[in-house]
Amino acid sequence: MESNKNNYVLLIHGGVGTIIKENMTATKEAAYLETLKMALLAGENVLKNAGKATNAVEAAIKVMEDSPLFNAGRGAVFTHEGKNEMDASVMDGNTLDAGAVAGVTQIKNPISVALQVMQHSNHIILIGEGAERFAKQQGCELANPSYFYDEDRFQQLKMAQLHNEVILDHSGESAYQEGNIENEGKKFGTVGAVALDTHRNLAAATSTGGMTNKQFGRVGDTPIIGAGTYAHNKTCAVSCTGHGEYFIKNVVAYDISALMEYKQTTIQEAAEYVIHEKLKQQKGEGGLIALDQKGSYTMAFNTKGMYRGVVSKNHSPKVDIYK
Amino acid sequence: MESNKNNYVLLIHGGVGTIIKENMTATKEAAYLETLKMALLAGENVLKNAGKATNAVEAAIKVMEDSPLFNAGRGAVFTHEGKNEMDASVMDGNTLDAGAVAGVTQIKNPISVALQVMQHSNHIILIGEGAERFAKQQGCELANPSYFYDEDRFQQLKMAQLHNEVILDHSGESAYQEGNIENEGKKFGTVGAVALDTHRNLAAATSTGGMTNKQFGRVGDTPIIGAGTYAHNKTCAVSCTGHGEYFIKNVVAYDISALMEYKQTTIQEAAEYVIHEKLKQQKGEGGLIALDQKGSYTMAFNTKGMYRGVVSKNHSPKVDIYK
Repeated sequence: MESNKNNYVLLIHGGVGTIIKENMTATKEAAYLETLKMALLAGENVLKNAGKATNAVEAAIKVMEDSPLFNAGRGAVFTHEGKNEMDASVMDGNTLDAGAVAGVTQIKNPISVALQVMQHSNHIILIGEGAERFAKQQGCELANPSYFYDEDRFQQLKMAQLHNEVILDHSGESAYQEGNIENEGKKFGTVGAVALDTHRNLAAATSTGGMTNKQFGRVGDTPIIGAGTYAHNKTCAVSCTGHGEYFIKNVVAYDISALMEYKQTTIQEAAEYVIHEKLKQQKGEGGLIALDQKGSYTMAFNTKGMYRGVVSKNHSPKVDIYK
Repeated sequence: MESNKNNYVLLIHGGVGTIIKENMTATKEAAYLETLKMALLAGENVLKNAGKATNAVEAAIKVMEDSPLFNAGRGAVFTHEGKNEMDASVMDGNTLDAGAVAGVTQIKNPISVALQVMQHSNHIILIGEGAERFAKQQGCELANPSYFYDEDRFQQLKMAQLHNEVILDHSGESAYQEGNIENEGKKFGTVGAVALDTHRNLAAATSTGGMTNKQFGRVGDTPIIGAGTYAHNKTCAVSCTGHGEYFIKNVVAYDISALMEYKQTTIQEAAEYVIHEKLKQQKGEGGLIALDQKGSYTMAFNTKGMYRGVVSKNHSPKVDIYK
């Protein structure tokens, strides 16, 4: 807990999965840790200059979206049709305003469009081409398909198609999921951030490139307020990552808030119950980061690892990968 | 409350709004009441033959989707681009399985596709063209644009465009919203149903044609599990209607469940608090129907009227419009 005045806190995650040291090279590990740190510093830069929590989570997420390491923005995985369909959402814990986009393919930073939806439209969720028309009208930066092209990601798709699998179901133990393509198959690469700013406001945001080989315009929990993202000053800010369908049907992000509000649990108790009891019983894999107005926070996951980091006024950036 | 064994209960709604007797013709009123009754009988037919709650809510909603009176399926309103973009969702309170579609334009019964997504895919939410490809693959019935064409609805769009308004915001007092086009401007026409079957399982479902003159692929609360639709045997089944953005950011359907589970409120207390306190304070207009495993139910709305009905093993269909 970090309850002193003018404190700020920023937490980030870069996805969960079977992320174990044995499958990681030293170079790759260093690259992940470095990018997480850069994301924290970008968000902290907003917060220490008295900026808003909503802008801090955007800044942190943009760094991860711009990196090919994470499954969001530039590093988005390929759908069955060989496209990159991305989703993102953001919520302001002070006003309860929210914005989200789903199924966008030409946007450089989906999280920035989600923020524009929140700030400059009467709606919360915009999807597909409509969302892209809005983004263009707002002057958001576009990117053509080659920007998202990554040889490793494309090979993932080919392997997944060869095995006729959507890389979403952890139960299959396919060889190609273990190590061959850097263990991507067992990783849910959604990125997210939650922040407390010096004005004592909370915000949460999440961004994803979906699941390799997914079909039919599938949308997971990331753009769903209440499932993948939720923020309310009186309870907490939450960003989730994992097997999206479980997070949708358990309304995970809002459930943390509801437990705190209606059952007076602490933020840690709420996360412990939802991630390690409720989801685990259903075999729903994933994790979340959550932060309250006093600066108490938790980073909970029921997988082998979660890319994650935290920075606050009194503590320099700390980044982690494994349990 | 209807707690006797082998009981079944079905509730439906056909949207909320400034629905007042002075603006209604006797013919129109009779048509609404008759269609609501037909929807109840279609759902009851499933339940009294020991069918599933999920199939009962589908059957009831299909009747309303097939009617031009309600803003769902055939009666879907026009978007800014003159299209009909529809959303629907369903949830099984026994298994927590769920299915939803958003932004579909060629589907005769969006609720049936949502049920197919629940039953025959690993995903919960499918959007746009992808959802339509899935529907075709599953053999769902398609409809071409002329099926959805309705002169009244089209005039609504023209009037809305003339006034440069999205018919979503109740605060504007435009002349064309009052009476001229049968008061459609002040009505949120989403349809929904919740059911308790003789196996003691709950289900909830919702379907909508969106908002007249909406732009940019806007999606409301209807296809969002937790916002417009939620069902869990241990708490309740809920279907919402109203100004979708408020229902999204307040995670309304799941909030009713969370209040019952974590705060031990009754279903009536939960609905009373959310609709008449929480939403009203935010000027969020709408209503909901909710039902628990004992057969207790509530139909709450903070607008002038809500098309609604209820039938159970021991009570013949009862339909209502006004407060």
